[in-house]
Amino acid sequence: MMKDENTKMIKLTQTVKKGGCAAKVPALILKEILAGVNFPPLIEGLTVDGSSFDDAAIYEISPDIALVQTLDFFTPILDTPYDFGAVAAANSLSDVYAMGGRPKTCMAILAAPLATMETSIIKEVLQGAIDVIKESKSSLVGGHSIDDDTLKFGLSITGVVHPKKVWTNAGALPGDQLILTKPLGTGTLCAGLKHKSYHESDIEEAVQSMKRLNNIMDYLSSVSIEAIHSATDITGFGLAGHSLQMAKASKVNFKIFAHSLPLFKQTISSLESAHLTKAHKSNEEYSRPCFNFETKVSALLKLVMFDPQTSGGLLLSVKAAQANKIVEELANFFPGTAIIGSVTDISTTDKKFVHVE
Amino acid sequence: MMKDENTKMIKLTQTVKKGGCAAKVPALILKEILAGVNFPPLIEGLTVDGSSFDDAAIYEISPDIALVQTLDFFTPILDTPYDFGAVAAANSLSDVYAMGGRPKTCMAILAAPLATMETSIIKEVLQGAIDVIKESKSSLVGGHSIDDDTLKFGLSITGVVHPKKVWTNAGALPGDQLILTKPLGTGTLCAGLKHKSYHESDIEEAVQSMKRLNNIMDYLSSVSIEAIHSATDITGFGLAGHSLQMAKASKVNFKIFAHSLPLFKQTISSLESAHLTKAHKSNEEYSRPCFNFETKVSALLKLVMFDPQTSGGLLLSVKAAQANKIVEELANFFPGTAIIGSVTDISTTDKKFVHVE
Repeated sequence: MMKDENTKMIKLTQTVKKGGCAAKVPALILKEILAGVNFPPLIEGLTVDGSSFDDAAIYEISPDIALVQTLDFFTPILDTPYDFGAVAAANSLSDVYAMGGRPKTCMAILAAPLATMETSIIKEVLQGAIDVIKESKSSLVGGHSIDDDTLKFGLSITGVVHPKKVWTNAGALPGDQLILTKPLGTGTLCAGLKHKSYHESDIEEAVQSMKRLNNIMDYLSSVSIEAIHSATDITGFGLAGHSLQMAKASKVNFKIFAHSLPLFKQTISSLESAHLTKAHKSNEEYSRPCFNFETKVSALLKLVMFDPQTSGGLLLSVKAAQANKIVEELANFFPGTAIIGSVTDISTTDKKFVHVE
Repeated sequence: MMKDENTKMIKLTQTVKKGGCAAKVPALILKEILAGVNFPPLIEGLTVDGSSFDDAAIYEISPDIALVQTLDFFTPILDTPYDFGAVAAANSLSDVYAMGGRPKTCMAILAAPLATMETSIIKEVLQGAIDVIKESKSSLVGGHSIDDDTLKFGLSITGVVHPKKVWTNAGALPGDQLILTKPLGTGTLCAGLKHKSYHESDIEEAVQSMKRLNNIMDYLSSVSIEAIHSATDITGFGLAGHSLQMAKASKVNFKIFAHSLPLFKQTISSLESAHLTKAHKSNEEYSRPCFNFETKVSALLKLVMFDPQTSGGLLLSVKAAQANKIVEELANFFPGTAIIGSVTDISTTDKKFVHVE
């Protein structure tokens, strides 16, 4: 993709006060708002509760087709328009893959400051998204665009999945192995970018990772796909938050090997430089009570687990016998894919769902 | 719905520079942006072109189910939060009804200035939308919300329709009668509200009309439904623009009886008071070359045709023999429903697609 001169001058992350997920309505405020709204019963065929504002819904439209639906948009977390569009698309599409679905249609949500922003920049944001949508074998079928003070972009996506083959985060079984498909650290690296400590080219490894689709089914054998008992994608709550949600929903305990966690080259040095976001703190507050860290786990590795991810990898709970084969099948396409832990019976003596050693 | 004290103090239309569709990226700029984006071929089953950013797409997911998908969001056009949410929802849902579909799932797009706006206001916006969604027999299944400078709200909607029963705007036949299901004038009345010439209670008739779902199928007999050859909803381009698009797509001419157009009580006086938007002018520029107005048609009635509608009615092209019956079936639920014209063979001598007398 050629970039014209104008777009080299502007750094998108400097055009917004809050980048990416930091602009989200905080969970507690959203919860308070929704608690004050009177929701009617759901229509037949829906298997999610609209009152929770979940990111992905499952709607059984016929006995053998369920729709997987998700909607996401955010302000720039990267400076390069093309890459911002691509990451926004990959991040939105990830929720469909995390449910075992295949995306089919996308609609764009675009807000742009027409008075101050060259249209060439908007074109590149769209092209970045379109190229990722193309790779996902889905199509952009519509959308809505408004003139607004700051740039925002995202997608509303519909995918399909067989109703009996939905991956939820409630299927992990004792004896399973845990696999993570992308390195951790996008939160701290994007914070460093926003702090102007990095140029985008310095964190190219993370940018490529965020642009990567979580389309693992395209690379796995059917035996491997059958061996996946549970899946979720790692996003704003970090590995800690999303692994905790999976362990709780599945009524199991997780053991995570801190030294097996895949990291970007600069993840540790960026955390050492204190490139942090508010989410590092709120993620720790959210997850810490249910975590048991062995004393040998360093403060920096704990921070890695609380690091909020954008377009992070999938966390899979898989049949132990197939775990190495799955890692092998994904390795060429998802650098860093690793077995990071295992699933055990739920402890009845404490509320520590996740043990990190 | 009870309204608390806070929400009586704020006038939502005064919190934004541009209300409703006026905040849309102008069609010409959008066209220029999209012309610079390289779109891949569409996936199989899609019957719309993503490059046109159409508001509603049709995707045949199985031989007997097609998805109807649309996405829309805008800034406040009304002062009352509950009514703004309700109108935004009815307006978004309208695109599904205009294709002959029935809405099933909705996802919310919410941007709100958390620092300056009471959460009670946001709750009421959501409640207004939820109540209309409930009436449509669909469910809110998710969404995304961000902290932003100005309030914006809308929905991404998926409906279903039998692939062979899609209403397009290309099916009008010579000999058909044209029916419009809601009065015209929301553009000028909302402009008067923004100009502070009206209180919202002054334009209650228009507010009720904008909140009304275009769910005509719920009230029509199957014989009447079969008699509908073509449909479209009247929104930002006004009756002029949308009737022109239907006549062109159907390769027919329209005859419209200006004195049969249904109007709100204050539509004419509001236009006389010059409560206009930029869209009145751009709609005239867009449609005028293809219109032939008889000299007896007053300047004000011409303006009515260019008036941009929010959550306007459906324009139906129906079998003449069934037209009166359709009006009769709808009259109790859609005040103002009227036969407003007829369809004739296309003229080969000029490019005047619509004749107004």
